[in-house]
Amino acid sequence: MATTDQALDQTSDQATNQWHELAQQLRVDSIRSTTKANSGHPTSSMSAADLMAVLMSKYLRYDFANPKASTNDHLIFSKGHAAPLLYAMYKAAGAISDAEMLTLRQFGSRIEGHPVPVLPYVDVATGSLGQGLPIGVGVALAGKYLDKLPYHVWVVLGDSEMAEGSIWEAFELAAHYQLDHLIAVLDMNRLGQRGETMLGWNGDAYAARARAFGWHAIEIDGHDLDAIDRAYTEAQAQTGAPTLIVAKTLKGKGFAEVENQPGWHGKALPAEMATRAIEVLGGERNIIVPIHQPEQAQPAPRAEAQPFAAPTYAVGTSVATRTAYGDGLKALGAARPDVVALDGEVSNSTYAEYFAKAYPERFFEQYIAEQQMVGSAVGLGVRGYIPFASTFAAFFSRAYDFIRMAAISRANLKLSGSHAGVSIGEDGPSQMALEDLAMMRAVHGSVVLYPSDPNQTVQLLAAMAEHRGIAYIRTTREKTAVLYGADTTFSIGGSQVVRQSAADRVTVVGAGITLHEALKAADQLAGEGIAIRVIDAYSVKPIDAATLHAAAQATGGRIVVVEDHWVEGGLGDAVLAAFAGDEARPASGPLPTVTKLGVHEMPGSGKPEELVDAAGISARHIVAAVKALL
Amino acid sequence: MATTDQALDQTSDQATNQWHELAQQLRVDSIRSTTKANSGHPTSSMSAADLMAVLMSKYLRYDFANPKASTNDHLIFSKGHAAPLLYAMYKAAGAISDAEMLTLRQFGSRIEGHPVPVLPYVDVATGSLGQGLPIGVGVALAGKYLDKLPYHVWVVLGDSEMAEGSIWEAFELAAHYQLDHLIAVLDMNRLGQRGETMLGWNGDAYAARARAFGWHAIEIDGHDLDAIDRAYTEAQAQTGAPTLIVAKTLKGKGFAEVENQPGWHGKALPAEMATRAIEVLGGERNIIVPIHQPEQAQPAPRAEAQPFAAPTYAVGTSVATRTAYGDGLKALGAARPDVVALDGEVSNSTYAEYFAKAYPERFFEQYIAEQQMVGSAVGLGVRGYIPFASTFAAFFSRAYDFIRMAAISRANLKLSGSHAGVSIGEDGPSQMALEDLAMMRAVHGSVVLYPSDPNQTVQLLAAMAEHRGIAYIRTTREKTAVLYGADTTFSIGGSQVVRQSAADRVTVVGAGITLHEALKAADQLAGEGIAIRVIDAYSVKPIDAATLHAAAQATGGRIVVVEDHWVEGGLGDAVLAAFAGDEARPASGPLPTVTKLGVHEMPGSGKPEELVDAAGISARHIVAAVKALL
Repeated sequence: MATTDQALDQTSDQATNQWHELAQQLRVDSIRSTTKANSGHPTSSMSAADLMAVLMSKYLRYDFANPKASTNDHLIFSKGHAAPLLYAMYKAAGAISDAEMLTLRQFGSRIEGHPVPVLPYVDVATGSLGQGLPIGVGVALAGKYLDKLPYHVWVVLGDSEMAEGSIWEAFELAAHYQLDHLIAVLDMNRLGQRGETMLGWNGDAYAARARAFGWHAIEIDGHDLDAIDRAYTEAQAQTGAPTLIVAKTLKGKGFAEVENQPGWHGKALPAEMATRAIEVLGGERNIIVPIHQPEQAQPAPRAEAQPFAAPTYAVGTSVATRTAYGDGLKALGAARPDVVALDGEVSNSTYAEYFAKAYPERFFEQYIAEQQMVGSAVGLGVRGYIPFASTFAAFFSRAYDFIRMAAISRANLKLSGSHAGVSIGEDGPSQMALEDLAMMRAVHGSVVLYPSDPNQTVQLLAAMAEHRGIAYIRTTREKTAVLYGADTTFSIGGSQVVRQSAADRVTVVGAGITLHEALKAADQLAGEGIAIRVIDAYSVKPIDAATLHAAAQATGGRIVVVEDHWVEGGLGDAVLAAFAGDEARPASGPLPTVTKLGVHEMPGSGKPEELVDAAGISARHIVAAVKALL
Repeated sequence: MATTDQALDQTSDQATNQWHELAQQLRVDSIRSTTKANSGHPTSSMSAADLMAVLMSKYLRYDFANPKASTNDHLIFSKGHAAPLLYAMYKAAGAISDAEMLTLRQFGSRIEGHPVPVLPYVDVATGSLGQGLPIGVGVALAGKYLDKLPYHVWVVLGDSEMAEGSIWEAFELAAHYQLDHLIAVLDMNRLGQRGETMLGWNGDAYAARARAFGWHAIEIDGHDLDAIDRAYTEAQAQTGAPTLIVAKTLKGKGFAEVENQPGWHGKALPAEMATRAIEVLGGERNIIVPIHQPEQAQPAPRAEAQPFAAPTYAVGTSVATRTAYGDGLKALGAARPDVVALDGEVSNSTYAEYFAKAYPERFFEQYIAEQQMVGSAVGLGVRGYIPFASTFAAFFSRAYDFIRMAAISRANLKLSGSHAGVSIGEDGPSQMALEDLAMMRAVHGSVVLYPSDPNQTVQLLAAMAEHRGIAYIRTTREKTAVLYGADTTFSIGGSQVVRQSAADRVTVVGAGITLHEALKAADQLAGEGIAIRVIDAYSVKPIDAATLHAAAQATGGRIVVVEDHWVEGGLGDAVLAAFAGDEARPASGPLPTVTKLGVHEMPGSGKPEELVDAAGISARHIVAAVKALL
């Protein structure tokens, strides 16, 4: 345990009293807002009130008038359900009014049931447990390695979420990267939603795990204000390793009727009980705490932005789109100093290694920890960087909850998934992404791209970097023919009509590897006197509905869609959806007849061409599907 | 370090020689099969060959003539890419021929690039790292708590996958459940795919982490055959805790040109090099090792199966479908002794607690570790149990990779996701599942159910238990009106026409909460003289295409689909897909005119009815959409 210095000792009685009053206010306000809302998590807020009172009074450095200041500390409630406490802190900091705080959970309010960055003081959405710490790692990576700023990242952890594997991914990466400005505060109140946590009050176990993962750990009584103070001082003094403060607390601390009682998770106190609680806690207060301003500092200067010099590929050669991803990302790195990259220990397959070798200071190896990789990316995005995270497309399914939450965080996140579909060949189904298009389409506001050509890949990468939001690009393992000249333009929401004539009788829509099959089919059908239109639907979301509608009309309403993906939720469904309407704009006819070709049976190992054919998505299947429509 | 007994010492020289010869054979065969395939992971196999030679010679108890024997040990290669080693072991056990082993990675072969249970000796598919251990925990839970059989579960771990959070979920749950028959063997060969792992050869760190998580840990030289032998003996003698053997190894051990060299991950040796390697390793061998038969034992007797006594609900009352899940699961527990349940620390919300209280010996609390929960469920399924795993639907996104792999494992897995959609209300978007239908539809062979009524929920639960495969049921937080009598029948692939008349002008398709909105809309429209057909599409996959086609035909080809889910990938897309064809059966006609109502904007907090209305999926929006089609 650290010792306090003499000066602090001399003022500690007074400080302790002030902290206590503030903590009681935070408890009272957590009760007031939740009782008014008739739902929420007062007891999970009360346990951490002392910890937060000391933090905001003495340690947190934050300019509430300028929440985007680069020098601000970051405070992330990984236990997002303690949102009432966070809002009570904002009130006590003078950032929001008491009246706004009391709009908790009301329709249209910024004061949502779990924190969302609709409030400018909130970096990221939390509420799916085990995500705040991984994201905090990303924010701390930015501070230490990119901004080189002395801000601290404070993460408030619940004890239930310590069971999430993502927490331990964060622990290992934070230690690996020696993130000494990352301080996690574990509110060990023993009680989860439906009973005791796995470890209860076994603080020694949490501390031992943290230490085994390379962290500094401090165990304290989370209601001993002076002990909290000493722990923060000790944590801030740490170098070379992050710190976990294991704070033993009581859920519902301060009001005996709920304190350390089961059955009070996620329940507001009934009005009468709340009145008693507020009285016991010393009544309402309206303390405003002066928050320390951040240190004066400037982020490390960035290189000048340069025009994007796209690598180009000659028509007639064959290049895998994953290779183009590597080339293009490196070129983006040259053009944009705000572009950073991460990879899940497969950078020699995704070709993120080209960037890593060119810009090692902007590349963060995340090892085989995909949740942490996406968490780090979201955290880097909080600091204004444009993160490109890559792994095999199949393994983004490991991080789907993080991607889902990134949408709620309004994150600027770029994902690249390689090795899509059965066309990867011999490695077999565990390595094949066959659900990634479905998964990524169902992310709010996402862009989903699936190029078939390296020049196209590079252009779409540049568009992803310009686009604000979540964008996903799916790349192919195998080499494919270069189809487009480097001067062809592609855009998010676009498509390319690759073959067309006035005699077209069927439209075939493909993307990525299947576009090449569609072109083979077109050649074969042309030999038989059957002209087809071929569309490269490289932008799966948003999809180019206008081009599809025109093609349908021009080809007698006959469409074949072919994709290297399960038949559910991918390109086929996206094309169908382009012909549906919504309340404001009902679909206008005539509507097409659509044949969907996709993967139906579980693939095994084999050569790419064997598997593509067995899946029913090769040229001969397209030919058969076209003929069946005529 | 354990000491060996005198008897073993006396025979150790001879045994060691035999083990060495076998290990060299395993190496040679791993090289032969991968070189023939021209791909695969020989070096990742060679590092673990000594560990496996001793295991199969002396410790593994397995009847290869009866791979489903309940008493068999289980051997799971969590590092699935070491499949060539596993196949070499099967050959050495006489289970497969040398010729079949050499079909590695060929189209149509059972000897796939990563293990799949197409081979009867393989319990589950691996290859997405960090999954074998969580599944092994499930197999061990079955052995200790249900079967009460002395079998061991041996899991071979790679060091790269120790970075996956799911591994630590497995560690914590295995310790919590005191799975002393679970032995994990860590092949610490230092080298991942693209370079050194985070911890390299820091065996102390792995051991410290394991101990902090409650395991017994042993560090050995993974090429010292006697040390391996002693470690297994020590591990088997452990009681009360699982054991991790941290074995320091050399990737590519035994052939200097690749041994401990970077750049040899996932690469076959060229033919000439393979010839040299095989010579260095002592040439081809065809040793057949007698494998110890399992102990004679019988699984603990199960209660007699009983007829399913469905709980029933009276029309006119209101009951949440999540409550019906709880009631129905408990009733299933009474009827079927093979039904077991798991929950992610929210059983008082999913109502899995009804089962937990009635059948505590068949309920496994998994805390907030959704990946482990699905892993445990898959593992329990390996032993023939029918696992129902529940959490908030949104949080299954945490386990999507496990669900994806469960499909490759041909697992029998039942998932229940509660709190679907914006209709959960005040908790806000982090707790709302709005992508689960898309995610679950895109799982190979899955069944996706979304009931609107408690009697229906109970019936569908019984159908899920009967169905072999992956089935998902989505339940609603709010109480909804009981629509169906207890005698109405529902089935996987079915639907229910809830309103119909000869005058129907539009078909409205809903499921779950939106069916109730559709019925309100039907009432309102009837008041205005507009008759609509209302379909309860409770089976989202497979969807009842015939009923949809008939309805479309009867209502002028006008369909409105309404769902509490993002507009991508869910019920709307499923309905559209029902009107598409495939190569074998082209669609019989053009698509109907479909209006899709679903969630478009990021919701916040609010009352359920406010959020349902704001999302554009309430009765008034359905009314407007119907009118817009007329």
